Amino acid sequence: MSESGLKDMAELVSLCKRRGIVFPSSEIYGGINACWDYGPLGVEIKKAVKDRWWKAMTDRADVEGVDAAILMHPRTWEASGHVEGFVDPLVDCKTCKGRFRADKMDVTPCVQKPSKMASACDGEKGEPRLFNLMFKTHMGPVEESAAVVYLRPETAQGIFVNFLNVQQTMRQKVPFGIAQIGKAFRNEITPGNFIFRTREFEQMEMQFFVEPGTDMEWFEKWREIRFQWHLDNGLRREKIRWHAHGPGELAHYAKAAFDIEYEFPFGWQEFEGIHNRSDFDLRRHQEFSGKRMEYIDEIKKTRYLPFVVETSAGCDRSVLVLLAEAFRKGVAEGEERVYLKLHPEIAPYKVGIFPLMKKPELTEYADKIFDGLHKKYRCTYDDGGSIGKRYRRQDEIGTPYGVTIDYDTLSNHTVTVRDRDSMAQERISAEKIADYVGEKIKNWRA
Amino acid sequence: MSESGLKDMAELVSLCKRRGIVFPSSEIYGGINACWDYGPLGVEIKKAVKDRWWKAMTDRADVEGVDAAILMHPRTWEASGHVEGFVDPLVDCKTCKGRFRADKMDVTPCVQKPSKMASACDGEKGEPRLFNLMFKTHMGPVEESAAVVYLRPETAQGIFVNFLNVQQTMRQKVPFGIAQIGKAFRNEITPGNFIFRTREFEQMEMQFFVEPGTDMEWFEKWREIRFQWHLDNGLRREKIRWHAHGPGELAHYAKAAFDIEYEFPFGWQEFEGIHNRSDFDLRRHQEFSGKRMEYIDEIKKTRYLPFVVETSAGCDRSVLVLLAEAFRKGVAEGEERVYLKLHPEIAPYKVGIFPLMKKPELTEYADKIFDGLHKKYRCTYDDGGSIGKRYRRQDEIGTPYGVTIDYDTLSNHTVTVRDRDSMAQERISAEKIADYVGEKIKNWRA
Repeated sequence: MSESGLKDMAELVSLCKRRGIVFPSSEIYGGINACWDYGPLGVEIKKAVKDRWWKAMTDRADVEGVDAAILMHPRTWEASGHVEGFVDPLVDCKTCKGRFRADKMDVTPCVQKPSKMASACDGEKGEPRLFNLMFKTHMGPVEESAAVVYLRPETAQGIFVNFLNVQQTMRQKVPFGIAQIGKAFRNEITPGNFIFRTREFEQMEMQFFVEPGTDMEWFEKWREIRFQWHLDNGLRREKIRWHAHGPGELAHYAKAAFDIEYEFPFGWQEFEGIHNRSDFDLRRHQEFSGKRMEYIDEIKKTRYLPFVVETSAGCDRSVLVLLAEAFRKGVAEGEERVYLKLHPEIAPYKVGIFPLMKKPELTEYADKIFDGLHKKYRCTYDDGGSIGKRYRRQDEIGTPYGVTIDYDTLSNHTVTVRDRDSMAQERISAEKIADYVGEKIKNWRA
Repeated sequence: MSESGLKDMAELVSLCKRRGIVFPSSEIYGGINACWDYGPLGVEIKKAVKDRWWKAMTDRADVEGVDAAILMHPRTWEASGHVEGFVDPLVDCKTCKGRFRADKMDVTPCVQKPSKMASACDGEKGEPRLFNLMFKTHMGPVEESAAVVYLRPETAQGIFVNFLNVQQTMRQKVPFGIAQIGKAFRNEITPGNFIFRTREFEQMEMQFFVEPGTDMEWFEKWREIRFQWHLDNGLRREKIRWHAHGPGELAHYAKAAFDIEYEFPFGWQEFEGIHNRSDFDLRRHQEFSGKRMEYIDEIKKTRYLPFVVETSAGCDRSVLVLLAEAFRKGVAEGEERVYLKLHPEIAPYKVGIFPLMKKPELTEYADKIFDGLHKKYRCTYDDGGSIGKRYRRQDEIGTPYGVTIDYDTLSNHTVTVRDRDSMAQERISAEKIADYVGEKIKNWRA
């Protein structure tokens, strides 16, 4: 059985659209640039990823969760450095009137005319000007006088400003962390690659507060934990790698930074970053708010600004990585077969239930199996078309197990269970399906 | 034992701040008007509410989930009527320069000077002008020429524009519904009452598409289901009621509308609406997009625009209702006792684990119990202060069961389990805690 992975993003985009995973946003109005909606199956995949992350990160005594508002006090973004520094240099083209990123002149498509590449226009370019990537809006009834507020460009600051609130109300002692999942917004000049770079996106971030001097040790610990999490989700080791930021690459707040990269059809790309942010953020907030942000160590009788080790994963990117990784194309019984080799705990349905034919005696039996099983596992029921066609349909959405009810079932109460990955079929007792599926899920390996 | 409920919102706001449930957003910068952050315990309560809603709504074969983007094509809001009609009339005061809602002149606080009530200023008022409540921003690099986009003021439209995408990819037949949880934004002139009316909020909405003529029947079905859901969450029947919209109250899109109201200290207020939206939305989107939005009934060989029955719950409001409902103040052993009578499945921790004293033999035993239990139930561990003080602490955050490990435990392997609501204590075998707690949770009644 020869099999290949994802070679062309267009194949994945098309499958996602066709099978209710991801739709272009506002599609009936021609879409809106680089915004996407999760369909019925995509929302389950994304929820599984978020729930797994949340459980892994907050089901430990030293991490607390929060959910901070998207709209924050605008001083937050002065303190964080975003008002001043979160900018891209843009140039105007005097010929085509397009606007381009000055630092990516050779590769950036024209924003005003998306089909045109900057390099395609030889027109004279003006001086680069700085463009802030934060979305800006006004809060309050009077646009002229009301406060300008920003859509947060990262969730991290919602954690920093709440550092002492969380530490004190939860009586936590450093080292401890604060985890959050939420939307962030960046007015990217060049969004693209499906849900990889979008202007609206979801982050899964954790800021871990440690005593200065212990930061590199915790940095290494969290690097290991986060890398393993992605392997546990079913990524193959050879498809992810570390990228260490060199001195020239480090962000203004970072003492050390490692990206986790995945090998997409469009190259190796970052989908999670582990950062040693030093005490940059707490120090800046202390300065800009005039409020002490220090932690008081009651035992050692010291006070200090903790250092922060951050694990920052893109939620949409993690979903994209899992979809790209899961996409497999092969040949089965002389026909092309596409399937999603998703971790069963991430697959939108765990079990597909198929009466061999649309006959009352079979569908009634299948209904009973569905009713018994769906309380424990998300199931789907399909009685339309040939059984081969139904298998293919479930393969495409990554349903790991298929249960077929046929005439033998009626006499001996056994069913056929088909495995998505191997296509192997096994005949088992109908009453053992739940246990069988439970075992299979537990022992599944990519 | 005399006991009273919540009389004054300030008591709840204070408890929420003190115990890590809800913090004022950006508090170190003096806060930002009517924005709130969920703390470590609040985020668990909110997650439990969302998970329960999601399961109740999507764990049926006739409802699919989606997660649409907050930023949508701006034509969406022309079609929905928001650009034209989502407005409040405002008047300027020539004396105090404040700006007020013309339709609520007698009760509305001055927005510019929040401490001042409109009625307190007798200054001459100008003509009312219309103010749109949608937050507006710009997408793309050039503010002047880029498209104006809005932060969605409701999640519903993300469902309507995806109606055919969902129906076709999931091969659904009318009647069926689409459910969504997500943020929405309204630039309210007079936000307030804690997390009741905020400018950024989360909705839990389901739009159910039905054949015209069957809409009132489905309207009644969904009214019943949604009302029961709130009772199942632990609300007392006498604290919630229906409010039917009279002809003058109905929104422009509505054929019938019923609110579910809760009796807060500040009066009866709506926290969920069940609406018969007729075919208003699909018809408007068909008109504005030029795309057919009709459903094709393959069996009856007909095509039509479905009617929509909507169930629209405020997520933050549902959390507030549950907190307000749970708040109880009484006297125990001669001292004031405050506790949150939350449904155990909504409480942030299910079990508190307390070694009687901070002695290694007790704490080691308690650790073992914690390790065994927390895989199944979210637990908290507390070894600080007197046992009475620890009970009070858990009461305040609604932990339904407390397990105390004492010296008898070491000899006979029994522990004391304390019930939050009755304060009754029972001595049970340590190895039976998990089953005991499971039974208690299953049988809990408000």
